[in-house]
Amino acid sequence: MRYQISTLVILLLISISGSADNLLGFDAAGSEAHRKLVNQFDTYLRPEDLRKWMQHLSARPNHLGSAYGKQNAEYIAEHYRSWGFETEIETYHVLFPTPRLRLLEMVAPVRFKASLEEPALAEDATSGQKDEQLPTYNAYSIDGDVTAELVYVNYGIPEDYEELERYGISVEGKIVLARYYGSWRGIKPKVAAEKGAIGTILFSDPADDGFTRGDTYPDGGFRSSKSVQRGSVMDMPLYPGDPLTPGIGATKKAKRLKLENAPTLTRIPVLPISYADAKPLLAALGGPLAPAKWRGALEIPYHLGPGPAKVHLKLAFNWDTVELHNVIARMKGSEYPDQWVIRGNHKDAWVNGAADPMSGMVAMMAEAKAIGALASTGWRPKRTIVYAAWDGEEQGLLGSTEWAEHHAKELKKKAVAYINTDMNSNGFLRVGGSHVLEQLVNEVASDVKDPQVGVSVLARAKAFAQINGTDKQKLEATERPNLRIAPLGSGSDYTVFLQHLGIASLNLGFAGEGEYGVYHSAYDSFDHYIRFMDKDFRYGVTLAKTAGRLTLRLADAEILPFEFAGFADNLGSYIEEIEALTNTLRKDTQEMNLLIDQGVFTLVINPNKPVKAPKKKDQVPHISFVGMKNAFAELQLTVSDLQQLINAKNLSKLSKRQRKKINQMIYQTERKLTNDRGLPRRSWYTHYIYAPGFYTGYGVKTLPGVREAIEQRKWAEAIEQEAITAQVINNYALHLKKLADYIKEL
Amino acid sequence: MRYQISTLVILLLISISGSADNLLGFDAAGSEAHRKLVNQFDTYLRPEDLRKWMQHLSARPNHLGSAYGKQNAEYIAEHYRSWGFETEIETYHVLFPTPRLRLLEMVAPVRFKASLEEPALAEDATSGQKDEQLPTYNAYSIDGDVTAELVYVNYGIPEDYEELERYGISVEGKIVLARYYGSWRGIKPKVAAEKGAIGTILFSDPADDGFTRGDTYPDGGFRSSKSVQRGSVMDMPLYPGDPLTPGIGATKKAKRLKLENAPTLTRIPVLPISYADAKPLLAALGGPLAPAKWRGALEIPYHLGPGPAKVHLKLAFNWDTVELHNVIARMKGSEYPDQWVIRGNHKDAWVNGAADPMSGMVAMMAEAKAIGALASTGWRPKRTIVYAAWDGEEQGLLGSTEWAEHHAKELKKKAVAYINTDMNSNGFLRVGGSHVLEQLVNEVASDVKDPQVGVSVLARAKAFAQINGTDKQKLEATERPNLRIAPLGSGSDYTVFLQHLGIASLNLGFAGEGEYGVYHSAYDSFDHYIRFMDKDFRYGVTLAKTAGRLTLRLADAEILPFEFAGFADNLGSYIEEIEALTNTLRKDTQEMNLLIDQGVFTLVINPNKPVKAPKKKDQVPHISFVGMKNAFAELQLTVSDLQQLINAKNLSKLSKRQRKKINQMIYQTERKLTNDRGLPRRSWYTHYIYAPGFYTGYGVKTLPGVREAIEQRKWAEAIEQEAITAQVINNYALHLKKLADYIKEL
Repeated sequence: MRYQISTLVILLLISISGSADNLLGFDAAGSEAHRKLVNQFDTYLRPEDLRKWMQHLSARPNHLGSAYGKQNAEYIAEHYRSWGFETEIETYHVLFPTPRLRLLEMVAPVRFKASLEEPALAEDATSGQKDEQLPTYNAYSIDGDVTAELVYVNYGIPEDYEELERYGISVEGKIVLARYYGSWRGIKPKVAAEKGAIGTILFSDPADDGFTRGDTYPDGGFRSSKSVQRGSVMDMPLYPGDPLTPGIGATKKAKRLKLENAPTLTRIPVLPISYADAKPLLAALGGPLAPAKWRGALEIPYHLGPGPAKVHLKLAFNWDTVELHNVIARMKGSEYPDQWVIRGNHKDAWVNGAADPMSGMVAMMAEAKAIGALASTGWRPKRTIVYAAWDGEEQGLLGSTEWAEHHAKELKKKAVAYINTDMNSNGFLRVGGSHVLEQLVNEVASDVKDPQVGVSVLARAKAFAQINGTDKQKLEATERPNLRIAPLGSGSDYTVFLQHLGIASLNLGFAGEGEYGVYHSAYDSFDHYIRFMDKDFRYGVTLAKTAGRLTLRLADAEILPFEFAGFADNLGSYIEEIEALTNTLRKDTQEMNLLIDQGVFTLVINPNKPVKAPKKKDQVPHISFVGMKNAFAELQLTVSDLQQLINAKNLSKLSKRQRKKINQMIYQTERKLTNDRGLPRRSWYTHYIYAPGFYTGYGVKTLPGVREAIEQRKWAEAIEQEAITAQVINNYALHLKKLADYIKEL
Repeated sequence: MRYQISTLVILLLISISGSADNLLGFDAAGSEAHRKLVNQFDTYLRPEDLRKWMQHLSARPNHLGSAYGKQNAEYIAEHYRSWGFETEIETYHVLFPTPRLRLLEMVAPVRFKASLEEPALAEDATSGQKDEQLPTYNAYSIDGDVTAELVYVNYGIPEDYEELERYGISVEGKIVLARYYGSWRGIKPKVAAEKGAIGTILFSDPADDGFTRGDTYPDGGFRSSKSVQRGSVMDMPLYPGDPLTPGIGATKKAKRLKLENAPTLTRIPVLPISYADAKPLLAALGGPLAPAKWRGALEIPYHLGPGPAKVHLKLAFNWDTVELHNVIARMKGSEYPDQWVIRGNHKDAWVNGAADPMSGMVAMMAEAKAIGALASTGWRPKRTIVYAAWDGEEQGLLGSTEWAEHHAKELKKKAVAYINTDMNSNGFLRVGGSHVLEQLVNEVASDVKDPQVGVSVLARAKAFAQINGTDKQKLEATERPNLRIAPLGSGSDYTVFLQHLGIASLNLGFAGEGEYGVYHSAYDSFDHYIRFMDKDFRYGVTLAKTAGRLTLRLADAEILPFEFAGFADNLGSYIEEIEALTNTLRKDTQEMNLLIDQGVFTLVINPNKPVKAPKKKDQVPHISFVGMKNAFAELQLTVSDLQQLINAKNLSKLSKRQRKKINQMIYQTERKLTNDRGLPRRSWYTHYIYAPGFYTGYGVKTLPGVREAIEQRKWAEAIEQEAITAQVINNYALHLKKLADYIKEL
């Protein structure tokens, strides 16, 4: 089925463009003109610009609420204005706690006080800017003063607690020590609190981003012993943005929740530490040896506890409301000013943030400068281009969320697509996003050369899949015409656009050959970047070429380059996945319950060790996916009809009014993938194809309503959600049918 | 096919014993009598005996050539005599180098001198017996004085050098630093020398038997920072035993090779060190970062070198010939004195050796004592039982090899089977051996209770496979009547019996729940054993029950309990494996060569890193396995015929002469699996079904002639070896046919 649909991809492409040589969305003349435009665009991209801007923007700590962050907003705005964009700074007022007191000490069996400091390095010019740096902490941890025995919980995700249960270890009334990675960090204190813990300590194990990966900073680019990952721990899978203004813009006068009612703050205090601070705590743990997979890279046996290590954690914050400054720059569309292509990236860092966010930010500035230069020759985009530099992303996507919630009505009407580029390094193109843009991404990526190896970035990404991919990816790298793009979970500013408003979105960057172990530390600096990331900014320029082409194609296409057969192909594979997941879960549950019933575990477990057999789980019922499958079959037929219709018509010969209407109907398709009631227990998330996992935080769950119900063993909910998902797919197919009917009548 | 054959297993069993309730090899009356005998046997086994003997035997260092080793031989002999065995000490004269000088120092970029010492521990009473301990060293390393840059080679096996080649790193003229595990240690200097290295340093990475596995000694049982694994590095896959007397017994007057012509000595000097001594060397290495899988558990990034670490390695040995003392005890068979069941274990340690070898040794003594007690009631075994305590096993299976070479002619004629129990801990029964004994092992294991969980040791081993096995093992644990026993490679004293003389052999012990990280160190002590291994000796007693039953069944059966359908089933699976291996190798080679030809690696490899694309390999031709398959088909038919014949006859009613003849023909079957010319380039190894790998050392290669030719990409040799293997299988089938014909005529 998969490859039949892929053939359809090619046919549809040929039909919209009229010829295989045409660009998707353009006829022959339009394609030629656009190719010229893009070549011209490339000539304005200069690595020295990116270097200069990054050096300036990361010269001082520039987090939300900082003086330098505000200066950066003005610096960016000034540049956009100078390039001919209508630019404004839109300000919001958001809750942003900063530490007033941080104390972590071990009180038994030996005394030890955690330093909680990242020392200045001679090799890193900005690492000593102590007066302006935010201390190492987790934003939206509540205040707390707790003393308790410690338990090591590995990554601190639900399956880790299942394992602890086999050891008879409860974290009730304890403080948990969890390592970073394995999920988004905000999941860890959420799950710990659900399990009764009274505090959470997070640490960076060198197995995950330290010496296990390579030499540590400043010898290499990976995390050194005293480096700490800061970060937000709000319950973002519930809703992102300002905790006090869910669903609405955090304007000065917005109605706010009381602090004590804000559901996305943690329920227990949380503090991040370095592995130098974590090692004495881990070494002091007794109790059973941790399972083999739980071991990190420290030179100690990892024990689970609880105790004898006992720690005292005391945290107090200034619960301030601060100003947030988004820079919004517009270039009005000449034909469709009310169709907006939004290109955004955040501008705020945890500290200096050369890589995160400036690497993506300066690529975006280069694009804007080049588009400004094109405009100065008299060219204008057909659609309005909006360049956004978001503030407060690090705290929980505040800037983008508040702006998009504030302008939700207008955005739902006008937004064509959103393109994000949070983080760039070097190596291989990585793209996630709405699958309706997969064909466009492939066309663009085949048109941009990798700066090192002389083939297109698409060819290099396919080569990567051929060597390093899963079996499926290896096969598809040679046999599927398009490289799949990944579905998006969360973790950057596309979230509100895609998952709250239903705007087709992309996130892209280059990665795989840098040495990035300084995430959210004071060492994510210009000095680090030019030694261990993209030292001559050639991948920065390559990113500008790629994201710039995507923006220009979306802004200038006669017919928007959305492509539905590729979407359908991916959707089909997710439906297959859900069915396979359910069958596997049923089989595994049956087999495991049988082994437990037969006492096989009792024979295998060492009677002298505390570990117990796993507990039996409820049987997985047979769940019908017929609703989704029928809706999907209908969708396939509709996509096929639409393609035949487009074959028969030359859309670029239609009137401007007709094209406007068709384009509107095209970009409104993504809205049809949402449901106003939202997902169970988190109504802010309305997209029924893509959502961040409730227990992964960043990691995507496709078809999240039904998938998470099954994963969480809520069988009745799975049946309900299957029906809602089927309805969403039906609505989508119906909308495409209307589009086909409209074209038919022309 | 597999399960059809397994059905045949059961049928054959029923037929030989006459009833499903009968023991294999006995009729109803014989079965009942034997069951009574075994119950009586069990009553003589006392854990306190095992404890007392282990404490005595491991009280002082007792290696080959030591004073205490000789005392132990006399102690053991005295016990055997006291239990009624005809006992003698057979002495051989073997080459045994001991260190005269050991020096390892880093001379650049910083100076460091390796301590090469295992400190005494207050918690370990024998660890301080410095005057009698052998220093930490590798036996049969040549003398040497070399200074060179260091290269880290991971496990130092051939595939590691393929990887190094991708980095453009040669070890020519360098000293290699290899970690233990991944192959038998003697392989490491052999391969290093083949690659041009001038010295080898071996170290115990804590990832393999140190803190990664659990708490280190004396807190736990795993390897501590200064603990060193001693061991032989002779080229054992060429031939084991005294390097100067290949193929013949090292009697005083034996003709000896000159030292300089002994092919099993290393070609370069080799020294083992602790991880405390290895860490400074590893930390001083520069060059590329080691591949992720090469990383151990030390808190450093692992680099490959070469250099800047430069080391000076100086070794000199006393190349002495020492006396080796095997204790050989016999109880003559009442019916078939010229059919010998040999039960052996080594008695020599590297230092004190509580676990290795005394754990297996004291179980064997308990068996002998119990058999002596049975004999004192007037009972006598039908066949002669030989109890052997081998000396010099640690140096390269010297005691067993010299004795068996010395008595080869008699053994070929008389030996029924050899049973070995090198190492016991606690947990799960692990058995390797000739598959003709698989059915016997399963019967016996189902008759011995696990001392902890109250089911048979067979049931517990099957449960282990159900939870921890491969998919195939999981399936077979519930669906195949018999638990498979593993094929034997090398690593203990069964080698000469099985692989040189073609005597059906077994090696067994309990493992999986001890903490054994003291292998070949001064900390393999009684104090360690009673804390972290089998503290109350209940698994020692369980091993005595298991191996004792095997011995008694083989010694007393009317018809020897060999079973050919199970052998055929395993053989069939090895033939299938070889064909699948060849096809996979062909497919992988094709795919890899295509990726290299297409330049896909060039696109994926970071151009700024030194690693290169792998090299193309020659195409794998289609190789016919028709010879082996036809021979195997013939064998299957013969096994089936034999079974029908046995069904029709009541063998226990035959005359003693007839039974003697049948029994001889049965145990001679294993001889038919050998070929006098031996394997290519190592004629000492004559068994064509089982051999230690030429590049694994301990790890088994089944159907080694053809398998290793394919693995080493020697296509012409693979074709030759397939024909020889087919001939061996044909000879085996022919022998079974003769047995069938003989029975038919009775």
